[in-house]
Amino acid sequence: MKKYYLMAPGPTPVPNQVLLAMAQPIVHHRTPAYQALFAQVREGLKWLIQTRQETIVLVASGTGAMEAAVTNTLSPGDKVLVVRAGKFGERWAEICKTFGVEVVPLDAPFGQTVPADRVAEALKKTPGVRAVFCQHSETSTGVLHDVQGYAQATRQSEAILVVDAVSSLGVADLPMDAWGVDLVVSGSQKGLMLPPGLAFCTLSDKAWERVKQAKLPRYYFNLLEEKKLVVKNQPHFTPAVSIVVGLKEVLAMLQAEGLANVFKRHDRLARATRAGVEALGLELFAKATPSPAITAVFSPKGIEGEKVVATFASSHNITIAGGQGEMKGKVFRLGHMGYVGDFDVLVALGALEQVLAELGYPVDWGAAVGAAQKVLAEHPS
Amino acid sequence: MKKYYLMAPGPTPVPNQVLLAMAQPIVHHRTPAYQALFAQVREGLKWLIQTRQETIVLVASGTGAMEAAVTNTLSPGDKVLVVRAGKFGERWAEICKTFGVEVVPLDAPFGQTVPADRVAEALKKTPGVRAVFCQHSETSTGVLHDVQGYAQATRQSEAILVVDAVSSLGVADLPMDAWGVDLVVSGSQKGLMLPPGLAFCTLSDKAWERVKQAKLPRYYFNLLEEKKLVVKNQPHFTPAVSIVVGLKEVLAMLQAEGLANVFKRHDRLARATRAGVEALGLELFAKATPSPAITAVFSPKGIEGEKVVATFASSHNITIAGGQGEMKGKVFRLGHMGYVGDFDVLVALGALEQVLAELGYPVDWGAAVGAAQKVLAEHPS
Repeated sequence: MKKYYLMAPGPTPVPNQVLLAMAQPIVHHRTPAYQALFAQVREGLKWLIQTRQETIVLVASGTGAMEAAVTNTLSPGDKVLVVRAGKFGERWAEICKTFGVEVVPLDAPFGQTVPADRVAEALKKTPGVRAVFCQHSETSTGVLHDVQGYAQATRQSEAILVVDAVSSLGVADLPMDAWGVDLVVSGSQKGLMLPPGLAFCTLSDKAWERVKQAKLPRYYFNLLEEKKLVVKNQPHFTPAVSIVVGLKEVLAMLQAEGLANVFKRHDRLARATRAGVEALGLELFAKATPSPAITAVFSPKGIEGEKVVATFASSHNITIAGGQGEMKGKVFRLGHMGYVGDFDVLVALGALEQVLAELGYPVDWGAAVGAAQKVLAEHPS
Repeated sequence: MKKYYLMAPGPTPVPNQVLLAMAQPIVHHRTPAYQALFAQVREGLKWLIQTRQETIVLVASGTGAMEAAVTNTLSPGDKVLVVRAGKFGERWAEICKTFGVEVVPLDAPFGQTVPADRVAEALKKTPGVRAVFCQHSETSTGVLHDVQGYAQATRQSEAILVVDAVSSLGVADLPMDAWGVDLVVSGSQKGLMLPPGLAFCTLSDKAWERVKQAKLPRYYFNLLEEKKLVVKNQPHFTPAVSIVVGLKEVLAMLQAEGLANVFKRHDRLARATRAGVEALGLELFAKATPSPAITAVFSPKGIEGEKVVATFASSHNITIAGGQGEMKGKVFRLGHMGYVGDFDVLVALGALEQVLAELGYPVDWGAAVGAAQKVLAEHPS
């Protein structure tokens, strides 16, 4: 027996009590029981997303919600800015181009960020921009982008700000209404500790106004039709009811912890992970503010990143992730979001020491684990 | 304590062993473990859909797969025929129109069907038809359409035949390759006894050729991108992994029963249900071949259909369904698909006797249950 650990940047482990809640008999979606369940979920999502707006819950991967954000707010030929500094930034651009939207990319090398003043400047220089698309936490690089700064720029413009918060919701602070974010997209399988299957779109008044004008075709992802029913606690199409049951459970867990504590927990686990990695002489991939959700690390010279991932699996039954796209083979990624605590960091770093040693890298036993312990002790929870 | 029964036409009850299988720790989708799981699922789906083609498994409601069928096979301005004799037939037309496809409707009153020779004739009379859309089992009316006949007509034409099998897969015989169906759409929450969350598209060679030519925009539902990865047992976007685990389980259950037995079981339960309903003097809504998945029944004069549904719930904790769209209030619908057996029919009909009596309808106690028993005895399983 080798105990299994899921330490990838999503899907993340689901707490046992949530797994068992989802194993209850199926709730039919056209019943008062479902309406009562969904009423609770609606309130929880408002709390989590720090907004007075309704969240549209879709049956989809996060990418489905990204597509919904594009097709529900834009018309053919519209011009948008895309903050593109990772694989998911590229995805925004791909979706926009697929639907005939003109993309003005704001590029930064992967691992870096686009400062807010570049966004502000681009908005001034480029007439007619209808939307700015970005990630909050770019899962492929482990960088946290300056959404607050981007929102300052878009609030003074005609553009709406659309934020992919798939790996930041319930992980990093994103006060939607206070910052003035117009559209938050997320999914169930990261900070929310659920199986993949649900995706979320939350829109500001400014974004809902755009929905009324938007001419891109959409049917399955029709947010306005969904919204009419959400206020009655009803779904449009058959929802993934078992995951909605799980959602109620995790929202209660997060509420019991308190939002500030949730963010603080992720922040200290991420700090501890980074300290451990650097104590082994490894280099972090993020050259800008690192994400509290995930740590991307350059694989040491002479050791293929995919080999690190494979050895975590073969020697220790631990799933971590490799690099995506151009980063494949160069980096490995440790997830520390969702149902995670102090000792998950020790497991990840302990295994990292073992794996690197097995692959011929000189390891000072306990260096990573010790550095993490120090950070955890210095930042009490 | 009032024991709960889910007897709606989807979602349907999930067997306990499947619920518990889905409650296992999350499988990461970029691992050999997921690839091994998906390899089994692929083989099982080929067996279930009676095809040598690969099935694309999407994270969506059935409507998402319907949209995928439209956007992946057609171009703006294409002309299609839609068999429209129920709410889901209307949905095909709505999706097509949303994406700029010209719809030539082949209408029949709800509860009736469109004979295959009308489809053949329309194909001859209407030049340039690229596709025919239909339901197999129309869930809103409880009618089974003549897909075999439609396929005979489309095989001799340039049109592909696209079949919504959401409530017929694993319920009624639909030998895709033998009949020459070009695109089968289905979902997880009906005959497959799973929670909602997965949807399926299976395409013939003729349909895959169309995908290469089709110009409608699609990104999240890009079947060609999915297909490239399916043959490597890999997903495109994050799949609903827990439901995929359940899918492996239900496919094994269905394989153990045998496909012919699965269809025979549904057929006899449907016959018994209809006999019971008619023994109470009620009128079936279906005026054409009834679906083995679901029985739609006219509510007796003076008794609102929604009242029947509400009384099943309030007096007996049983979920059945009312009428959709123009049928609302006029009919109620009993589901008998998926994880169902002889005695579920007795429960449904026993409750129906009780409910109707409570609502003032004269009931000969045991008439419905007895008529069903007779059918079950005369059609040994």
